[in-house]
Amino acid sequence: MFSSITRTTKTKLPSLLRLQSTFKIPEVQKGVIFYKHGGPLEFKDIPVPKPKATEILINVKYSGVCHTDLHAWKGDWPLPAKLPLVGGHEGAGVVVAKGSAVSNFEIGDLAGIKWLNGSCMDCEFCENGDEPNCLKADLSGYTHDGSFQQYATADAIQAAHIEQGTDLAQVAPILCAGVTVYKALKTADLKAGQWVAISGAAGGLGSLAVQYAKAMGLRVLGIDGGDAKKDLFYSVGGDVFVDFKKFPKEDTEAMNEAIRKATNGLGPHGVINVSVSDAAINQSTQYVRSTGKVVLVGMPSGSVCKSDVFNHVVKSLQIRGSYVGNRADTREALEFFKNGQVHSPIKVVGLSELPKVYELMEQGKILGRYVVDTSY
Amino acid sequence: MFSSITRTTKTKLPSLLRLQSTFKIPEVQKGVIFYKHGGPLEFKDIPVPKPKATEILINVKYSGVCHTDLHAWKGDWPLPAKLPLVGGHEGAGVVVAKGSAVSNFEIGDLAGIKWLNGSCMDCEFCENGDEPNCLKADLSGYTHDGSFQQYATADAIQAAHIEQGTDLAQVAPILCAGVTVYKALKTADLKAGQWVAISGAAGGLGSLAVQYAKAMGLRVLGIDGGDAKKDLFYSVGGDVFVDFKKFPKEDTEAMNEAIRKATNGLGPHGVINVSVSDAAINQSTQYVRSTGKVVLVGMPSGSVCKSDVFNHVVKSLQIRGSYVGNRADTREALEFFKNGQVHSPIKVVGLSELPKVYELMEQGKILGRYVVDTSY
Amino acid sequence: MFSSITRTTKTKLPSLLRLQSTFKIPEVQKGVIFYKHGGPLEFKDIPVPKPKATEILINVKYSGVCHTDLHAWKGDWPLPAKLPLVGGHEGAGVVVAKGSAVSNFEIGDLAGIKWLNGSCMDCEFCENGDEPNCLKADLSGYTHDGSFQQYATADAIQAAHIEQGTDLAQVAPILCAGVTVYKALKTADLKAGQWVAISGAAGGLGSLAVQYAKAMGLRVLGIDGGDAKKDLFYSVGGDVFVDFKKFPKEDTEAMNEAIRKATNGLGPHGVINVSVSDAAINQSTQYVRSTGKVVLVGMPSGSVCKSDVFNHVVKSLQIRGSYVGNRADTREALEFFKNGQVHSPIKVVGLSELPKVYELMEQGKILGRYVVDTSY
Amino acid sequence: MFSSITRTTKTKLPSLLRLQSTFKIPEVQKGVIFYKHGGPLEFKDIPVPKPKATEILINVKYSGVCHTDLHAWKGDWPLPAKLPLVGGHEGAGVVVAKGSAVSNFEIGDLAGIKWLNGSCMDCEFCENGDEPNCLKADLSGYTHDGSFQQYATADAIQAAHIEQGTDLAQVAPILCAGVTVYKALKTADLKAGQWVAISGAAGGLGSLAVQYAKAMGLRVLGIDGGDAKKDLFYSVGGDVFVDFKKFPKEDTEAMNEAIRKATNGLGPHGVINVSVSDAAINQSTQYVRSTGKVVLVGMPSGSVCKSDVFNHVVKSLQIRGSYVGNRADTREALEFFKNGQVHSPIKVVGLSELPKVYELMEQGKILGRYVVDTSY
Repeated sequence: MFSSITRTTKTKLPSLLRLQSTFKIPEVQKGVIFYKHGGPLEFKDIPVPKPKATEILINVKYSGVCHTDLHAWKGDWPLPAKLPLVGGHEGAGVVVAKGSAVSNFEIGDLAGIKWLNGSCMDCEFCENGDEPNCLKADLSGYTHDGSFQQYATADAIQAAHIEQGTDLAQVAPILCAGVTVYKALKTADLKAGQWVAISGAAGGLGSLAVQYAKAMGLRVLGIDGGDAKKDLFYSVGGDVFVDFKKFPKEDTEAMNEAIRKATNGLGPHGVINVSVSDAAINQSTQYVRSTGKVVLVGMPSGSVCKSDVFNHVVKSLQIRGSYVGNRADTREALEFFKNGQVHSPIKVVGLSELPKVYELMEQGKILGRYVVDTSY
Repeated sequence: MFSSITRTTKTKLPSLLRLQSTFKIPEVQKGVIFYKHGGPLEFKDIPVPKPKATEILINVKYSGVCHTDLHAWKGDWPLPAKLPLVGGHEGAGVVVAKGSAVSNFEIGDLAGIKWLNGSCMDCEFCENGDEPNCLKADLSGYTHDGSFQQYATADAIQAAHIEQGTDLAQVAPILCAGVTVYKALKTADLKAGQWVAISGAAGGLGSLAVQYAKAMGLRVLGIDGGDAKKDLFYSVGGDVFVDFKKFPKEDTEAMNEAIRKATNGLGPHGVINVSVSDAAINQSTQYVRSTGKVVLVGMPSGSVCKSDVFNHVVKSLQIRGSYVGNRADTREALEFFKNGQVHSPIKVVGLSELPKVYELMEQGKILGRYVVDTSY
Repeated sequence: MFSSITRTTKTKLPSLLRLQSTFKIPEVQKGVIFYKHGGPLEFKDIPVPKPKATEILINVKYSGVCHTDLHAWKGDWPLPAKLPLVGGHEGAGVVVAKGSAVSNFEIGDLAGIKWLNGSCMDCEFCENGDEPNCLKADLSGYTHDGSFQQYATADAIQAAHIEQGTDLAQVAPILCAGVTVYKALKTADLKAGQWVAISGAAGGLGSLAVQYAKAMGLRVLGIDGGDAKKDLFYSVGGDVFVDFKKFPKEDTEAMNEAIRKATNGLGPHGVINVSVSDAAINQSTQYVRSTGKVVLVGMPSGSVCKSDVFNHVVKSLQIRGSYVGNRADTREALEFFKNGQVHSPIKVVGLSELPKVYELMEQGKILGRYVVDTSY
Repeated sequence: MFSSITRTTKTKLPSLLRLQSTFKIPEVQKGVIFYKHGGPLEFKDIPVPKPKATEILINVKYSGVCHTDLHAWKGDWPLPAKLPLVGGHEGAGVVVAKGSAVSNFEIGDLAGIKWLNGSCMDCEFCENGDEPNCLKADLSGYTHDGSFQQYATADAIQAAHIEQGTDLAQVAPILCAGVTVYKALKTADLKAGQWVAISGAAGGLGSLAVQYAKAMGLRVLGIDGGDAKKDLFYSVGGDVFVDFKKFPKEDTEAMNEAIRKATNGLGPHGVINVSVSDAAINQSTQYVRSTGKVVLVGMPSGSVCKSDVFNHVVKSLQIRGSYVGNRADTREALEFFKNGQVHSPIKVVGLSELPKVYELMEQGKILGRYVVDTSY
């Protein structure tokens, strides 16, 4: 198809990176920008943004590409995005400048750009560590130009700290995909030794979720379709795989029974619905254990979660929405990555090839995670 | 209509009650029984049950009548009930006999019959205090003959302890209605000072919920329709009333806005859906505060809870099912009653008049709680 | 003794206050400063500080005086304080200037100065809402000149928001004393309806603790000595008073038994040790209920908490240290005050009389809370 | 020394075991009994006990020997024990009879005897899953004849379920030692990825604690003395070992610094004090991370836990006592064992040799866990 490098091992970036801090920040850079929803994604020269007093300027080396980027481009979410827009919210790079009020980053530090670019730090949500729910949340690649450019700004309080020596291409998808599934697992609030089901276990998010779940001491049942998925699931450490293709669609009870049988007869204590299918979500309320927690994590446009009230009450179920992680979640998710407990197979392509990646995403042809290299 | 006594003040039963323990237990008693779902509710002589080794026999003085009794009679729940059946699961009376293995009740003690008559005490749910979710749960007035008879058996571990001197007519509805709304409030897991909305705040369950919520230090917004409801709401201590009848049905946003305005602009931290209307449940996911908890507590047959996935995730909502209370919930709910923090206006009628109460219930004509006196 | 105004009712400040925002900030102001630990407390002209980019400048109207101010002056804590030092960390006033990066305060807003003046917002503690535990915590009246001056700076993220119209003299002690006891009660992690014992219930902190505890739905047993204390305790809403003077000192078991008897026979579920006596702390591990929580909140210099290990383990006790509140605790504590659920009897004296207040504090002669008016 | 078999691999018992259920229960059996504290431990013929209506009779095959057995024999705890007494509370065997009210065990099932033989199931503690804190707790080998006999009774609700095919010698120490350290880790309430320090990491309890901690996703720092201990620690999966012998006793700060350095510079989030040294406990309050939790788990007689109040409050520490596990803890601890995540090196000797084991325990010469085989 098009040029890409599949990288699955952790490689070090040249230690030269730190030197870079002495070089001069250009006025103009390469970036991918669009001017109206659904309009052309233009790879072109755009101005380098200036950091505010509380911001850092990051020389983005790599950025992951997320399904959310497609929504931002299409404009099909009820949340208004800025226009024109530079997308991207999984950027990893080097701090090259900082505002006058920034004291927690130094030039040359490695930093990550997350979905939550910044928040007010002053409201009830921010005070409670629920910054993503801040009404003034500023979102990378949505209300704030994101990581699909060589230089991007980020609020210093929200920007992620990345340890020197980290492979910036590998770590990029952790900043959103990794943090998001880790947060979903925390939202399920399970104890080590309990069973969690991952619905959509062998996809990009799913395989990360399996790894985080294992690192958290959980027993993992994966649901997905086909032998390739099954093999992938077991290769990342999953415990029991249930192939939904082997069950009749119209008889959900057969599959429910198989899931219960594999989990002490009672069903999983929690379910992470990485899959955004309405039917899969509804079914998860059937096979989950009584007092169990069903977590919604994807954000399809227009989807409705349906739950039978009688079942919901008698089984004392909880359906919990999990949005993106806060600062603590990010630190913790990166720590598991640093300890080698989580790996993510990525495909690296040039930033200039981003429009093709969007095309593939729209066609649902993406397996794993694409990461763009901003240098070409 | 028919003879009833409205009692709203705490009156003492004759202390003679304790003496009763010496009297002989009869072989035959009065009770209301039905032989098939929807069949006649017969007030007649039936045998007095014998307690098992782990059971107590309670001389039921009063029993509350609950909407669930209607479901048991109709048989419209997916859960199979026993037949023939004596309903009732809000019974308060005196222990007159006990099985050989019972050590936690003495003859003459006051005891209460709850929905959860007994459970295995051996499964994961029982071990974790989730006895109501036990797969072997035995349910009063459903799988175990209940409190619509003069003598009923109850598992000694699950039976409620009631303090000597308690008004047994007043306390009866606490055993199910009180415990259930208290449990729902606990399930919402709110902190003192936070806002809870009670949807259906002026009904039988609702007005109890308001009182428990206030006793828990919460600020209470009540939703119901009409000035009579409004007055009742304020008379039991509610803080802010929202009359849904004053808002156009087709524009939920107007009412949502009014609710948010009354709750620091952000909506209530939790919602207790005592009302079982599908539309009301759905709307509660709209006006609840981000990171808030929507609690389902009623068990209408065939109802479906619908939640927009995007909203659910972006606001990090939780929809939690709350079933009935466990032993600790019961003890605590009774303690609030004992301290005078919770009152329930009841109408007392004879057990023989129970069929008429069912009729009223089916017609939706009941305000407050009916309590049957088993002595006539 | 010396001139003071006892104010116990909520009075409004002139709405003129807002206009003040237009007036010019002077270069010099009145403040109380000391140059070495234990040295003279000088009321004199000192320069008005300039806010940093992330700070606000507050025209302090009133400031509470806290026992910690005495420690800061004496220098008897293991934590080094700055010198020379302007003490005070319970200041309430008006924002008169702000740094370039401040967006959450406007000139004319009311603001409060807390013990935690600022923190890094970047470490694990800050991320988790444990800002007071931040290793870079900046402390008002300790490492940062405090509220015993007419103009003081505060980090905008940590400064408290106070609603327009609030009585600034009344609210001042809430900013430390109120927040601290509220935080201690949150640390005890009790449920509404449970028993909390307040050891030292009728002192300045104690009487606030009783009121917060009642507002949180707790049942409150107070421990203190003498009838005057008893009367005060009941006047602020306490439930049961235990007078330690009525029990022999050498027989702690007699008093323990009285406490247990008053709390369902099992002892309180939690204890807030406002009293800093070693013996009282140790005794609280004896009378607290099994699985109960003993909270330490005062910070005497050189004190040691002793707990019998066998008792600690067999009763599954927890001894929890509670430091000062974070932003959320502050917001919540102020909310209870705003709702009229918490009142604090204060004595208002001029800032110039502060040295006399220190003298009284050292002699242990203070009842209630002194508040200094910075205008004289 | 004396005959013993070191067994560290999981071996199956003959499947013949189940057949045993048909054999006749004898009137007399072998057991080890003592008649006064510190008196002779007699291996002799004693009567087989009869199960009450709510009890099962277990043919004990193996029983672990615990330090608590020494306390029971000496009578040096403030808790009175029964006399004469058959000790032992880590017994694993086969159900051979059951009382009339028992429905959760069948003849032939495998069952375990725990420290908590039975509890009232009716008090506040039992209701909340804190059965070990029940005031009427009945303790195996302490207030109820224990597992140092061939046939022992156990309350059916509290007795542990053991899966068919389990190696009964291997599982015995899990019933107390395993459950106890697992409970201590749960009491520390840590999240996967956080650091826990185990003080006394290479002893019998310690090495189990390390394994449970790893299974729970924690990062484990072990503290113990000497290279043999170090090797053992790493062999069971520990992450970082700190040898206390390499630090001067009088300078605790040097060791504290080493511990902090190994744990992101901030100290462990939790500490499990398996070691019962007063000095070690006190030191753990110094090196634990702010907001961290210090857990006490051993029950030495007469020990006192000391904590500097200033440090306790400023660091917001918690010192939590952890007693033995409840039913849920037991189920979960056994599940980790069943999954092969936890191994315990044991030495098997005949029940007749128990007095020699007591001697070794008293001399502090025991490494690992002794298990007695009741057949000789």
